[in-house]
Amino acid sequence: MLLGNAKIATIDHASGEARFSYCMRNDGAIAIKGGNIVWVGDADAIPEEYKDPEKFPYRDLEGRLITPALIDCHTHVVHGGNRAVEFEMRLNGAGYEEIARAGGGIVSTVTATRDASVEVLLASALPRVDALLAEGVCVIEVKSGYGLDRETELNMLRAARAIEKYRAVRIKTTFLGAHATPAEYKGAPDRYIDEVCIPTLRAAHAEGLVDAVDGFCEGIAFDTAQIGRVFDVAHELDIPVKLHAEQLSNIGGTKLAASYGALSVDHVEYANEDDARAMAKSGSVAVLLPGAFYTLHETQLPPIEAFRKHGVPMAVATDCNPGTSPMTSMLLTMNMACTLFRLTPEEALVGATANAARALGLADTGQIKAGMRADLVIWNAQHPAELSYRIGFNPLSERIFGGVSVAQ
Amino acid sequence: MLLGNAKIATIDHASGEARFSYCMRNDGAIAIKGGNIVWVGDADAIPEEYKDPEKFPYRDLEGRLITPALIDCHTHVVHGGNRAVEFEMRLNGAGYEEIARAGGGIVSTVTATRDASVEVLLASALPRVDALLAEGVCVIEVKSGYGLDRETELNMLRAARAIEKYRAVRIKTTFLGAHATPAEYKGAPDRYIDEVCIPTLRAAHAEGLVDAVDGFCEGIAFDTAQIGRVFDVAHELDIPVKLHAEQLSNIGGTKLAASYGALSVDHVEYANEDDARAMAKSGSVAVLLPGAFYTLHETQLPPIEAFRKHGVPMAVATDCNPGTSPMTSMLLTMNMACTLFRLTPEEALVGATANAARALGLADTGQIKAGMRADLVIWNAQHPAELSYRIGFNPLSERIFGGVSVAQ
Ligand SMILES: [Zn+2]
Ligand SMILES: [Zn+2]
Repeated sequence: MLLGNAKIATIDHASGEARFSYCMRNDGAIAIKGGNIVWVGDADAIPEEYKDPEKFPYRDLEGRLITPALIDCHTHVVHGGNRAVEFEMRLNGAGYEEIARAGGGIVSTVTATRDASVEVLLASALPRVDALLAEGVCVIEVKSGYGLDRETELNMLRAARAIEKYRAVRIKTTFLGAHATPAEYKGAPDRYIDEVCIPTLRAAHAEGLVDAVDGFCEGIAFDTAQIGRVFDVAHELDIPVKLHAEQLSNIGGTKLAASYGALSVDHVEYANEDDARAMAKSGSVAVLLPGAFYTLHETQLPPIEAFRKHGVPMAVATDCNPGTSPMTSMLLTMNMACTLFRLTPEEALVGATANAARALGLADTGQIKAGMRADLVIWNAQHPAELSYRIGFNPLSERIFGGVSVAQ
Repeated sequence: MLLGNAKIATIDHASGEARFSYCMRNDGAIAIKGGNIVWVGDADAIPEEYKDPEKFPYRDLEGRLITPALIDCHTHVVHGGNRAVEFEMRLNGAGYEEIARAGGGIVSTVTATRDASVEVLLASALPRVDALLAEGVCVIEVKSGYGLDRETELNMLRAARAIEKYRAVRIKTTFLGAHATPAEYKGAPDRYIDEVCIPTLRAAHAEGLVDAVDGFCEGIAFDTAQIGRVFDVAHELDIPVKLHAEQLSNIGGTKLAASYGALSVDHVEYANEDDARAMAKSGSVAVLLPGAFYTLHETQLPPIEAFRKHGVPMAVATDCNPGTSPMTSMLLTMNMACTLFRLTPEEALVGATANAARALGLADTGQIKAGMRADLVIWNAQHPAELSYRIGFNPLSERIFGGVSVAQ
């Protein structure tokens, strides 16, 4: 296939720059073969071999914009139940206690997730997945962490893996056993880590279910010593790590994650310049999650200037989860990153493509470049800034997954 | 048609209450005939006449939720161009001056709108209309106000009216000549009002293009005396009025509008308890526009408690416009109303249905009630709070417009 008459945001390094930028080709073409991009360039410089309509059927995109497919690099799309009634109780003035007494909070999601089979978890995740795909997503990271027991954590990861069988999408799984301490281990987080979390990680790894290991390092969750024990096992098993850190306070999670060479450190509202330096050194991506910031009415902004100054790559993701970010739109995430965090539309798009790929350790997607997978989106738009500018509007014309145009 | 096995949020007055609430029927049915609702009630109380499958074919909704169709009661969906590049410039640090020099701001929209024919205005509005319809909207209010000259103001209203010919939706037009003073009348807003705005209103009315008259009463736009002159003409022509007021400051627009018996006063972040009293007395609806509040990083919340206390009905709307709210999602508007303004999900749904109908002077839609139009939405949801809880997710199963199930 040869896609021509297109405006292409290739997402690459401008000459001499370490960061990614749009790198526009305003009259560009892309040659695709065997699911991969074999050539990208200006329309007036297409090599002869790609002009053979037998081997490379030509498609005129009538000036439309093409970008790399979007990547949602931080989600909890697999979970049981929803928390709409709790959302309503809170807005009717119910306090934490009252909601907890009514069975609300993370406990309700853990209960609903434990009650669900792999099939039910999969079926309830698919509409959320479909919402992401409809906006041009081709890779979704999916975390466990609402089971908090061996079988349910495994079931969440099995459901996540199964998504690939039913939808044209690539799934990256993340083990998040260290998400919260379950009720049956209340007051004994260390015992939970040692008796449940780590053995479950080993079992999940043995079943081939773990692409990365994550944790929630926060006063209300686990401290750096506890997370460190989980990360030691990840290192032993040769699995990359990432961390929910510095969301509500700064307790050193970012530096811990950086010391383990984390792929990413996520949330990071309370990270400081020292943390940014540590992330730059370890090459960790800062994954910004504006949906949770918005839902929780947070006011502490992540240290964007420090990330820019020290060259920390920034990604953006939905954090799709039933409690703090019931969000299933990467375009809205990009708009919120601009509106709430003052990212530029270029940073938002880079954060949803090239830097999101990096946050998942993927070297074959996130840019439009010879040798990469042909994961692309054709948009009814003229300028990439339109993707972040609009709110609740989907200008998708076509999603291309591994060289194949897919209905959604 | 007889819709059965449904959870119905009828949106009505609970006994003895002036305000609307969900008024759920958890195992309900709706009989529809000739485009109207002829009966609604519990499944076990369906009158014999509606059980005749010849006259009332039965549809089992499998427990799905039905609500009145949504109504977007404040939009500027008809306009030329977009302001994505300006959005990007601002996030790259450009100031007001620089953006103005680059041709940005409302001037750029006025220029693009003047350059567009009725056909071009219609074609560019339809994707935005489609985004609204896809989430279950059946009535859209559309304002003029980016022409600011006679012919373009008329063209905007003609394009708005034409939407009904191409889509299954009802359009209510609003003349907003008093939106801004155009460049050619710079420094002479009174002359603009008298020489352009008022004569254009008369011409538009003569052409049958005006369902309501609106204005922008603000330090940066028009004062109460100028708006009053426009409203006097509206009264003379027997057209109801509404007003953009108290968005950025309090200069008395709300009281002015109330004194003219306005259908609604819109934005109202800076309205006070006195204004709320005046609105309660005039029966004006407070139309809340959280998308503009969000985009502009406003911090002054509308006086929700005063509206509740004095019984001012609250509606919510997208304010879809290219500058301060490029938003085309009523569901997201409802979520923002809850998250940013702390409305309850019930108030958000009432605000997108019954109270939105009232803000447009419509007595035949916005509730599920015998005698009303069968403008309904069937949702893949169990509880109406789900509609406000999720962010960037569309659970629509089916939109029913005047008794007819429409693809979108
Ligand atoms: Zn998360
Ligand atoms: Zn407006």
